[in-house]
Amino acid sequence: MKEPFILIVMGSDSDLPVMAEAARILDLLDVGYHLTIVSAHRTPERLHEFGRDAEQKGFKVIIAGAGGAAHLPGMLASHSSLPVIGVPIQSKSLSGVDSLYSIVQMPPGIPVATMAINGAHNAGLMAVQMLAIKYPELGQRLTQYKKKLEQEVIQKAEKLESLKYQQYLTQMFPSSNG
Amino acid sequence: MKEPFILIVMGSDSDLPVMAEAARILDLLDVGYHLTIVSAHRTPERLHEFGRDAEQKGFKVIIAGAGGAAHLPGMLASHSSLPVIGVPIQSKSLSGVDSLYSIVQMPPGIPVATMAINGAHNAGLMAVQMLAIKYPELGQRLTQYKKKLEQEVIQKAEKLESLKYQQYLTQMFPSSNG
Amino acid sequence: MKEPFILIVMGSDSDLPVMAEAARILDLLDVGYHLTIVSAHRTPERLHEFGRDAEQKGFKVIIAGAGGAAHLPGMLASHSSLPVIGVPIQSKSLSGVDSLYSIVQMPPGIPVATMAINGAHNAGLMAVQMLAIKYPELGQRLTQYKKKLEQEVIQKAEKLESLKYQQYLTQMFPSSNG
Amino acid sequence: MKEPFILIVMGSDSDLPVMAEAARILDLLDVGYHLTIVSAHRTPERLHEFGRDAEQKGFKVIIAGAGGAAHLPGMLASHSSLPVIGVPIQSKSLSGVDSLYSIVQMPPGIPVATMAINGAHNAGLMAVQMLAIKYPELGQRLTQYKKKLEQEVIQKAEKLESLKYQQYLTQMFPSSNG
Amino acid sequence: MKEPFILIVMGSDSDLPVMAEAARILDLLDVGYHLTIVSAHRTPERLHEFGRDAEQKGFKVIIAGAGGAAHLPGMLASHSSLPVIGVPIQSKSLSGVDSLYSIVQMPPGIPVATMAINGAHNAGLMAVQMLAIKYPELGQRLTQYKKKLEQEVIQKAEKLESLKYQQYLTQMFPSSNG
Amino acid sequence: MKEPFILIVMGSDSDLPVMAEAARILDLLDVGYHLTIVSAHRTPERLHEFGRDAEQKGFKVIIAGAGGAAHLPGMLASHSSLPVIGVPIQSKSLSGVDSLYSIVQMPPGIPVATMAINGAHNAGLMAVQMLAIKYPELGQRLTQYKKKLEQEVIQKAEKLESLKYQQYLTQMFPSSNG
Amino acid sequence: MKEPFILIVMGSDSDLPVMAEAARILDLLDVGYHLTIVSAHRTPERLHEFGRDAEQKGFKVIIAGAGGAAHLPGMLASHSSLPVIGVPIQSKSLSGVDSLYSIVQMPPGIPVATMAINGAHNAGLMAVQMLAIKYPELGQRLTQYKKKLEQEVIQKAEKLESLKYQQYLTQMFPSSNG
Amino acid sequence: MKEPFILIVMGSDSDLPVMAEAARILDLLDVGYHLTIVSAHRTPERLHEFGRDAEQKGFKVIIAGAGGAAHLPGMLASHSSLPVIGVPIQSKSLSGVDSLYSIVQMPPGIPVATMAINGAHNAGLMAVQMLAIKYPELGQRLTQYKKKLEQEVIQKAEKLESLKYQQYLTQMFPSSNG
Repeated sequence: MKEPFILIVMGSDSDLPVMAEAARILDLLDVGYHLTIVSAHRTPERLHEFGRDAEQKGFKVIIAGAGGAAHLPGMLASHSSLPVIGVPIQSKSLSGVDSLYSIVQMPPGIPVATMAINGAHNAGLMAVQMLAIKYPELGQRLTQYKKKLEQEVIQKAEKLESLKYQQYLTQMFPSSNG
Repeated sequence: MKEPFILIVMGSDSDLPVMAEAARILDLLDVGYHLTIVSAHRTPERLHEFGRDAEQKGFKVIIAGAGGAAHLPGMLASHSSLPVIGVPIQSKSLSGVDSLYSIVQMPPGIPVATMAINGAHNAGLMAVQMLAIKYPELGQRLTQYKKKLEQEVIQKAEKLESLKYQQYLTQMFPSSNG
Repeated sequence: MKEPFILIVMGSDSDLPVMAEAARILDLLDVGYHLTIVSAHRTPERLHEFGRDAEQKGFKVIIAGAGGAAHLPGMLASHSSLPVIGVPIQSKSLSGVDSLYSIVQMPPGIPVATMAINGAHNAGLMAVQMLAIKYPELGQRLTQYKKKLEQEVIQKAEKLESLKYQQYLTQMFPSSNG
Repeated sequence: MKEPFILIVMGSDSDLPVMAEAARILDLLDVGYHLTIVSAHRTPERLHEFGRDAEQKGFKVIIAGAGGAAHLPGMLASHSSLPVIGVPIQSKSLSGVDSLYSIVQMPPGIPVATMAINGAHNAGLMAVQMLAIKYPELGQRLTQYKKKLEQEVIQKAEKLESLKYQQYLTQMFPSSNG
Repeated sequence: MKEPFILIVMGSDSDLPVMAEAARILDLLDVGYHLTIVSAHRTPERLHEFGRDAEQKGFKVIIAGAGGAAHLPGMLASHSSLPVIGVPIQSKSLSGVDSLYSIVQMPPGIPVATMAINGAHNAGLMAVQMLAIKYPELGQRLTQYKKKLEQEVIQKAEKLESLKYQQYLTQMFPSSNG
Repeated sequence: MKEPFILIVMGSDSDLPVMAEAARILDLLDVGYHLTIVSAHRTPERLHEFGRDAEQKGFKVIIAGAGGAAHLPGMLASHSSLPVIGVPIQSKSLSGVDSLYSIVQMPPGIPVATMAINGAHNAGLMAVQMLAIKYPELGQRLTQYKKKLEQEVIQKAEKLESLKYQQYLTQMFPSSNG
Repeated sequence: MKEPFILIVMGSDSDLPVMAEAARILDLLDVGYHLTIVSAHRTPERLHEFGRDAEQKGFKVIIAGAGGAAHLPGMLASHSSLPVIGVPIQSKSLSGVDSLYSIVQMPPGIPVATMAINGAHNAGLMAVQMLAIKYPELGQRLTQYKKKLEQEVIQKAEKLESLKYQQYLTQMFPSSNG
Repeated sequence: MKEPFILIVMGSDSDLPVMAEAARILDLLDVGYHLTIVSAHRTPERLHEFGRDAEQKGFKVIIAGAGGAAHLPGMLASHSSLPVIGVPIQSKSLSGVDSLYSIVQMPPGIPVATMAINGAHNAGLMAVQMLAIKYPELGQRLTQYKKKLEQEVIQKAEKLESLKYQQYLTQMFPSSNG
């Protein structure tokens, strides 16, 4: 599972603080990936090359993050038959609504599996869910991960129920002026 | 490939005219599916059951379409580790923006692979792209399908270039009053 | 009135700074409640259980706060016949419009009584208004509370009228650079 | 239960085709109501009177529908301590987003329980859920009604599963050109 | 002209930093006003009284600022035949779009002259433009004021043209990191 | 009052079906006006001339309707010290939100009194409210008009209360399939 | 001027009824063009080729129309140094807001000169304005065209002023029920 | 190329921090320009003069930046046959959506080549692309500039690939708490 089955690309290195979340969850679930920068607009030849060659280089899934007129996920999807997961990056003036619409509103024939705005963590998980169709042990790791999420919520719930909410706020949100 | 690997659900039978597009493309690509109705809000037990049991019934991918406060895709994703593809159905008053936001803005941990508003055709294709990770012959069918789409565009382009645009309009869009 | 007639749940402890407002107004009006965390997406079994059992545990009203693809209020409403009051939590990228649409646009048959974005204080008041149908003394407390709000506005108006607005600004909004 | 416990008002008789849904579900559940027109803007004295007197006339819940700068629900809520359920009516140019924001974004102290755009049916149900806090037999009717909704979905699901989707479309959506 | 011809009201004292702009421009143009707080929702009787009595108290124009479900300008307009100028106050979650829609989308019969979000300065000017129909000397002050605005722009333009833009930025926007 | 005190302009004759409402209410209230077409974009010299000369031609108020990038009201306001009432015309693709923002979001110094989308009827009323500051008999006509609106609502309310809502729907909305 | 200096492309032949407006104005101004279909998503190689070769084929300006996740204009701009004019095509569910954002929100380095939604007529004019920098006789044709637009407005204004508006409505908008 | 072929205007000196980007890229590409302030609303005569005279003063392209009800680009386009490039400036309450709609939604006959919100850098590039139709050496500079952009992305990509993403984040985004 350590072969880099997943290609993570982003339109600019300024997207890295968001897109690193995809790498982190893949590290945690011990799934290999290759992470780099491809700009649909500034490096169109590189886009062309990555789109065309991703499959034969052994990648199984592409994760692409971009903001504004976010063409990267859709253009990779037009070049490749691999599933492409798109992450709309929050933008300065339109809060990512531009990124979301540019990624999700693909025409019939060329789907992009779109995540929430800044949803790179979920892009990583979705990529693993896709790989788990072929590699059942990944499904087990995902199930454990979901279980862990559930446990964390339940522990917080128990803590909140045992404390009064005022104390919980004071401990957990000290800057909250509630 | 005729086993029903794909579960297609929708929140109401009024979603069928849209969601049937997912079934049509699967029929065309000769991939089996099971299609039914599950309402997150009106049949919560059925939702619970479908989410919990989908994997052990042999499904590999879930496609879920819903409109308005569209909880079906996200709730199936919360119950199952299978990849869930969400189709926001166009709504009467908010044109599907409500459906889109309710489906795509999932919290970390529980991704839904969101398609365009009314993008059921692409949901079918994305499901096959996911299956193709395991079944390479599906990848070939997808490549052929993309080739066919490309050919159709090129043929239309040639026709448009050989006719003057006025004639093309008259032939193809007789009601256009251009 | 100190029995916990009101169940307050939120999707994540990060919603507590907002949702604590519901608890505060209930404390002020001396109405009992139980406050905890239930994530529609990360703890679907817990959601199922809370939705199904709330009524027989003696709760009369449910207040549920959630953000983004905010499924918690709607899913509780699908499981229970109790009135559910939904509080859309302001989200990072879409300012709570996503939360609002996910909560308010419920389909026929399963209403959620939706409050303003971050409107947890009003959720508490609405819950008491509902209880007051059965318990008339609560209606009196509500009337007194409204009277107090009215008095506060009138006192501020009198102060503003007696000072010049420049002085009022200086006293009340010292950081205002008007 | 035939006393008119519920006051249904709307801003204009042009809202009646929508607001009649609230009356229909109350008729079905056999709960009494009084239905009339009160315009916040054109009949401000009437608004004042209805808001001030609703409680002493024996009403327990107010349902108010309005469109555009929809002030009716909020102004009734400012005059009365009864719970007010607001129904944003779909508007011509802004599709009801204006109505929704005008109704739901109430300030602290004066809640309006907001339904979906054109959600008058759910307003009726929510009113009955509130009354059921005092009148347990209403809770039973609501539970039966939810059960019936569930049965209808399941029957449609069974029909769709037994027919092929093409036949279901032909039978149920004859004008669909799918 | 020092009689308080203009009534300035706002829904909450938190609106004062914005609404003070209306008072400032009236001070500058030497036009009298009365400024106070009236909450449509918390002080409905006071609203009623102010709307009904404004004309006979000698006011000629009403300026009303409010945010969120901003009912104050519209309700004053429903009670009075005086022209009402509405100022949508920028809100926390919806940036004032809610305030704008609640104020501007008035039904036929009850106009509100709506200003830009936070446009209290222009509300003051518009009030003076209205008064100038009766009092020609106000028209002269307005013309002088517009002339002054024009001169200020031309002086800035000359300064910018004589400096290089880098120097102008350094002098005028020292924190700009251009 | 028959002097044409009010100048009504629109950006295109396609706006006339909407803008005629302003003329109709002025006819009804017996107030003179001059109605014509001025395109901010196609007839900039005419715009310049109308803006500059409106006051000395004896007009007291300008009503301007425009759609899309609706510059007409704002540009007239920049040329004239008369109060300008802007009517955003509903547009094809953006439903008039573009027109509304282009008209209402004026910078400090140059107000436009903005009406609802397609709110030409209210533009006429607002113009008369402004004139009534100088001509008290207009105030009486406005008060009568408001009284008439109130009476109409009350008559409809009485009719609706005396009929059952089903009959009212059948009589008044025969095409409603409620 | 009859050399095809302008390349008009659209993403699908369904865009032709809109994009034909660009060809019509170029025909009217007697400027040569080549019009065809290039889908960014379905024919990525064709896109690549058109973007790369447009300049050496003698084109001076590219006009590109597309809807939804409208990547065509931006991708052509990334491949070519020619000015690219983008036309957002009105879409079914989001009215062209998706198309507009996908085209206009380009990152620094790769501009697209964006027109109004469905603004193909203006795309043709803008292309001629660009060419007129080199070919002064085009500037004269543009000036004449603007003069003609101005004359048309003035003639309509005169007609409207000489008729009463009721007659103008009856003659020009017979279906208007004003 | 040092003649000031490009006229850069902005509505207010507060737009300078954004609009200076247009000047910077022109400095870099060694293309002359004249930069000043023209307010459509506060200096309508100056607007008139600049629009009418720009061409005969030798300008070939106009770049105009404005925010809110941003009439400057459109009004210059109505006065001149030169191509006008519009830059919507990000606004306080509506994030520049108001500026964008006011600039891009121009009516047929009067195009404005609209850039992204705050897209002044691209406005400069687009102006040079237009000039390059006449001056081929500018085309070469543009091609070199695009090549440089491409190289920068590739260098960042290589750096990111050679470092682990954690190190890249630490070096480049030290304040990122990823």
